[in-house]
Amino acid sequence: MKSPSEIVNTMMNSDAFSKWLGINLIQINRGICVLNCKVTEEMLNGFKIAHGGITYSIADSCLAFASNSHGYQCVSIETSISHVKKVMSGDELTASSREISRSRKIGIYEISVHNQKEELVASFKGTVFISENLW
Amino acid sequence: MKSPSEIVNTMMNSDAFSKWLGINLIQINRGICVLNCKVTEEMLNGFKIAHGGITYSIADSCLAFASNSHGYQCVSIETSISHVKKVMSGDELTASSREISRSRKIGIYEISVHNQKEELVASFKGTVFISENLW
Amino acid sequence: MKSPSEIVNTMMNSDAFSKWLGINLIQINRGICVLNCKVTEEMLNGFKIAHGGITYSIADSCLAFASNSHGYQCVSIETSISHVKKVMSGDELTASSREISRSRKIGIYEISVHNQKEELVASFKGTVFISENLW
Amino acid sequence: MKSPSEIVNTMMNSDAFSKWLGINLIQINRGICVLNCKVTEEMLNGFKIAHGGITYSIADSCLAFASNSHGYQCVSIETSISHVKKVMSGDELTASSREISRSRKIGIYEISVHNQKEELVASFKGTVFISENLW
Repeated sequence: MKSPSEIVNTMMNSDAFSKWLGINLIQINRGICVLNCKVTEEMLNGFKIAHGGITYSIADSCLAFASNSHGYQCVSIETSISHVKKVMSGDELTASSREISRSRKIGIYEISVHNQKEELVASFKGTVFISENLW
Repeated sequence: MKSPSEIVNTMMNSDAFSKWLGINLIQINRGICVLNCKVTEEMLNGFKIAHGGITYSIADSCLAFASNSHGYQCVSIETSISHVKKVMSGDELTASSREISRSRKIGIYEISVHNQKEELVASFKGTVFISENLW
Repeated sequence: MKSPSEIVNTMMNSDAFSKWLGINLIQINRGICVLNCKVTEEMLNGFKIAHGGITYSIADSCLAFASNSHGYQCVSIETSISHVKKVMSGDELTASSREISRSRKIGIYEISVHNQKEELVASFKGTVFISENLW
Repeated sequence: MKSPSEIVNTMMNSDAFSKWLGINLIQINRGICVLNCKVTEEMLNGFKIAHGGITYSIADSCLAFASNSHGYQCVSIETSISHVKKVMSGDELTASSREISRSRKIGIYEISVHNQKEELVASFKGTVFISENLW
């Protein structure tokens, strides 16, 4: 079975949108992932704050890497996010996963996204379906 | 009170991320919004399908425009999305809103995202807090 | 394969909590279910309105019957509910399902709960895992 | 301002459904609540496992007590629950809250429900609107 690093390198390799977001992998282990990225002017909406889709995207990538790192291919079924603090240009976002539950078929993860002041900016919950396909 | 078109033009104007996504406004009325965009190579992940954040972003923009179009400024509180069909490069996505409920303080919207074959690709639900600030 | 009525009769038979709730089956078809029940004093919380768990319970039963009626046993993975109007003693609640999406493994349903004045009291969304076990 | 205990006693007093559920208050502080209850035969569905509404109800009560304990009246806006393990007759369920975020208007809570073997049976997330009305 491939290691978490091998799996995530395969996933990130040729991942055009993660490159556009500037996502960096900080930590990866079975079920555990930490990512960061820096918010740029291109990620802002008309209010000059980050579009909700930016924070969602980094959290969704964190979910994908954390859930796939066990070695089986996973597909996201349902995700929810609460945006609790505004994100500005120049902010550095860190997304970190917590595995709430994992059975043979279903995994549930909480992803917390903090800014550079260690303030929570969003709380994300994701449910994945675990296939029988190995990486 | 400003018209829905005036409000959404103000919101879209200088919205850098919506421009990057290539979002076009198809219809806007009080509580009703239809948007579309075309999926490009830059929006794909390592599996050569659209990153979940792309579909979320167009749905979240649709929520913002539909909920703000009544004239009061709204803030997203909680959103959830189920991705039900893969989205490929070249697909044309259309997001359309349905106002499930709207009280003085809270609005709830369903946003459906379809592809060019009129297949559902994602189902999104969003809850907004309605402030007392007029546009 | 068993009919939707046969499946739901099997499910409701010896379902002690649905009996306590006083749930009546109004309509059942593949993916479609309508239920009702009457709110009693025992279902109220300290504010003399129905406990959120009552509305959730009727919606969750509606999800179970709608999703299982296709003939394969389904298990709820994730459910969410927004309570949008107070429910009082004596109110008659009707829960009705809409099948948003159904693939081989995953079904997504919206359940709307209305009172006797046809006012929406809650909007519920449920995701189920579809097993290979026939009823 | 009333103490958390005074507020929750007021809420539980004459709460008919919580009495039917047999809910006991184990701990209460500003934003923190622990409850338990024992699953009875009347709470089972046709599969002889606890109806999803039972676990939801204890979690929803825990949300209500945790969020109101700060002294301002709160109303639930949106709640979601994932049922991750079957609950049987005789099981003892414990619901405990974690305050994810609390601003002036919006509070977000995670409620974890465990059985007597300290196994997670459900993960619940709730968002409340904080009114200006003191208890």
